[in-house]
Amino acid sequence: MKRITILGATGSIGTQTLEVIRREREKFHLVAVSANNSCKKIIGIINEFNPSYAVLSNEKAYEEVRDYCVNNNLKTKILLGMEGLNTISTLPEVDVVVTSVVGMIGLVPTLKAIEAGKDIALANKETLVVAGKLVISEAEKYNVKILPVDSEHSAIFQCLQGNKREDVRELLLTASGGPFRGRKREELLQVTVEEALKHPRWDMGKKISIDSATLMNKGLEVIEAHWLFDVDYDNIKVVVHPQSVIHSMVEYKDGSVVAQLGSTDMKLPIQYALNYPDREEAIVAKLDFYDMENLTFEKPDLETFKPLKLAYKAGKIGGTMPAILNAANEAAVELFLSKRIKFLDIGNILEECMSRFEVIDNYSLEDILNIDKEVKQYVINKFGVDR
Amino acid sequence: MKRITILGATGSIGTQTLEVIRREREKFHLVAVSANNSCKKIIGIINEFNPSYAVLSNEKAYEEVRDYCVNNNLKTKILLGMEGLNTISTLPEVDVVVTSVVGMIGLVPTLKAIEAGKDIALANKETLVVAGKLVISEAEKYNVKILPVDSEHSAIFQCLQGNKREDVRELLLTASGGPFRGRKREELLQVTVEEALKHPRWDMGKKISIDSATLMNKGLEVIEAHWLFDVDYDNIKVVVHPQSVIHSMVEYKDGSVVAQLGSTDMKLPIQYALNYPDREEAIVAKLDFYDMENLTFEKPDLETFKPLKLAYKAGKIGGTMPAILNAANEAAVELFLSKRIKFLDIGNILEECMSRFEVIDNYSLEDILNIDKEVKQYVINKFGVDR
Repeated sequence: MKRITILGATGSIGTQTLEVIRREREKFHLVAVSANNSCKKIIGIINEFNPSYAVLSNEKAYEEVRDYCVNNNLKTKILLGMEGLNTISTLPEVDVVVTSVVGMIGLVPTLKAIEAGKDIALANKETLVVAGKLVISEAEKYNVKILPVDSEHSAIFQCLQGNKREDVRELLLTASGGPFRGRKREELLQVTVEEALKHPRWDMGKKISIDSATLMNKGLEVIEAHWLFDVDYDNIKVVVHPQSVIHSMVEYKDGSVVAQLGSTDMKLPIQYALNYPDREEAIVAKLDFYDMENLTFEKPDLETFKPLKLAYKAGKIGGTMPAILNAANEAAVELFLSKRIKFLDIGNILEECMSRFEVIDNYSLEDILNIDKEVKQYVINKFGVDR
Repeated sequence: MKRITILGATGSIGTQTLEVIRREREKFHLVAVSANNSCKKIIGIINEFNPSYAVLSNEKAYEEVRDYCVNNNLKTKILLGMEGLNTISTLPEVDVVVTSVVGMIGLVPTLKAIEAGKDIALANKETLVVAGKLVISEAEKYNVKILPVDSEHSAIFQCLQGNKREDVRELLLTASGGPFRGRKREELLQVTVEEALKHPRWDMGKKISIDSATLMNKGLEVIEAHWLFDVDYDNIKVVVHPQSVIHSMVEYKDGSVVAQLGSTDMKLPIQYALNYPDREEAIVAKLDFYDMENLTFEKPDLETFKPLKLAYKAGKIGGTMPAILNAANEAAVELFLSKRIKFLDIGNILEECMSRFEVIDNYSLEDILNIDKEVKQYVINKFGVDR
C-alpha cells in the first residue's frame, strides 16, 4: 500500500491522479490533499476518500471547508496555506507526494517533502526549472526518487529503463507545437486568449495551455529534462510531432532510438509514476496502429516561438537565470490571460527580464524566492497597467 | 575481448558482422568463419582477420582455400562441411557464435554451440522456427544467452530491457510490406523473380528478399518471436510500416508502448547483439527527425499474402508444423528463384504441405531433420519439373 499526499488535488493533474487512485484502491491510500480555493471539489474528495488532512490556501475557503467538516462530523483535519502544505508534505505516514500544483508555490513543499524522505511524483514543472541544482542535490542526499509525471519526462524515464546512462547520446523531447504551429510572428500579433487556450491534443489547465501556445512549456521541459536526466542542453533536442503519439525518445550512442508511445491521456504517466517499478492494467485507451494517423516530425520555429529559444539560453547560463525566466513567464501569462498584454509580448517580457536581472550562480533557496518576487513585481508594475 | 565464430561469414549478415568486428578490433577477436563455396571472400577474410579456422561446405572450394593457405604459409586451419561447422561452433576458445547461415543448415551447429555453452547471436531464422521448443529448452539448460540479430527481434529485445515479462501485453512486429505492398492477388499472378527481389528498404540475400515479398519472412519472425520472448501468438501483432523506421514495439499492460527506431542498417542489431549489455559508438547513420518522412501504419493483407496467415496457423498448431511450413517454403522459394514456379504458387505449396504432412507434437531433432528432407523432396518432385 502506497500512502499519498496530493499537492494541488483539484486541478487537471490532481483530478486525474484521483482517478488513478480510485481505480487502484487496494494499492493506494490518499492521506492528504490540497487546493487553492475549490471548496466544492475538496469537499467531494473528503467525502469520497476520507483523507486525514486537507489544506486550503485561501482563508475563506479554508473556513468553509473546516465548518463543513465540523458540521458533518468528518474527521479530516483542515489546514491553512503554506504551513498546511509543508505539514502534509512531511507527514510520517506518507510515502509519495504528488506535486501537481502549478507555479513556484510548489517549490518549498517539494523541498520539505524531499528532506522528509518522501518520493516525489513530480508534475510541478517549476520546481526543477527554478531550483534544479538544489532539488536534485537534496534528492540525492535524502535518497529520494523523483518520478516524472508529465508525459514527455515519463516517456524518457521509461526509455532509459535497463540502459546505461553513459550510453545516452541525446534526448528527443516531442512537442505537439501547440495551437499556433506553422504560423509566423506576424500572424500571431492579434491572437486572442481563447485561441491560445485551444490546445489541439491535450486537455490541460490555463497556465500550461498558454505555455504550450508559446512553446515556453517545451522550454521548461528542456530545463527539467536537463536536471532529471543529467544531460547537457546541447544534447536535448525538441522535435515537433503534432500527433503527440510518440511522447518522447532517447537516442543511444549506437544510433538506436528508444521511444515511448501512448494515447494523449495524462493518466498514463500518473499511473506509471505511482506504480513504478510495476505497471498496472490500463486506464487509458489502447493505441490502434491499424487505425493510426500518419506520424509527422518538424523542427521547431525558434524565431516565432522565442520563449523556447530563451529557455535554452537561460538553462545554459544557469544559476538563477531559469528562475528569472520562469517568474517573468508566470507574471506575463497572468497578464495575457487577463488581457492586459498581447500574445507576443510574453516572449518580449521574458527577453527583457533576462537581460535586466543579475544572475546569482550559487544560489540559495532564499535567492530563488527573492528573485521570483522581484521579477514578478517588475513585470506586473511595468506591463500590468490596463490598456 | 569477445571471441567469435561466424557461421555464414560471406553472406549479407556475415559481411556486415565482419564490418562491426573491423570497427571494434579491441573488443572482438574472430576465431572461425564458414562459407558455402565463396573461396575469394573466405581468402579475403583469412588475409584480413587471420582466424584460426575456416570451414567450406563445398568440397572443391574447401580444396582451393586449403591449397591457398598451404601455398601462402597461412596458419588458418581449413575444414570441410557439417563436421567443420560443428567443430567451429564448439571450440573452447569461442564465446559467441553468430549464426548467419540461411536455412535449416543452421540448426545442428546452433544446437551444438548451445550445448557447448556458447552465447548465440541468432540471425538464422529457421533455428527457432523449426525447433523453437528444443532450442529454447537447451539454451535454458546450458544457461546460454540467445541474442537476436534481426532488426525486429533486436528492437523487441531492447524494448523489453528494464521491464517485467509479466507486464507485456502485446508484441508489435513491424513489416515494411515488401515490394508488393498494396497489391491484390490478381496483380501478383505474373510478377517476376527480379521484381520480387527488389526490396524497397533493406538490402538482403535472395532467399530473405523473396520471403519479404510473400510476407513469409514476417511469418517466420512471428514464430521466432513466440519462442524468443515466450508470448502467445494471439498477442503478437504484425503492423505494416513501410518506412521501416520503427523496427518493432512492445505494448505493456498499462497501455504504454515502447518502440525502437533506427536507420535500416543491419549493422545496428549486429553491433547491439555483439556488445550487449553495452552499446558502442554508432556505425550506422543517425536518424534525423527534422528531415523524416511521415511514418505510416497499416494492417497486413492476409488474403493476398497467405504465407503470413499460414505461419500464424502453423505456429499455433505447433509440434513439427512450423518445420513442415519452413521446409515447404525453402523448397518453394528455390523453385521460384529458378523460375520453375510462379510467385503465388509459393503460398499454395505451403498450404498443400501443411495439410498433407502429419504433425509430431513432441518431436526430436531427428524428427525435424527427417520431416525437413521429406517435405523438400516432396515439393521438388511435385513442382520442380521444368515448365
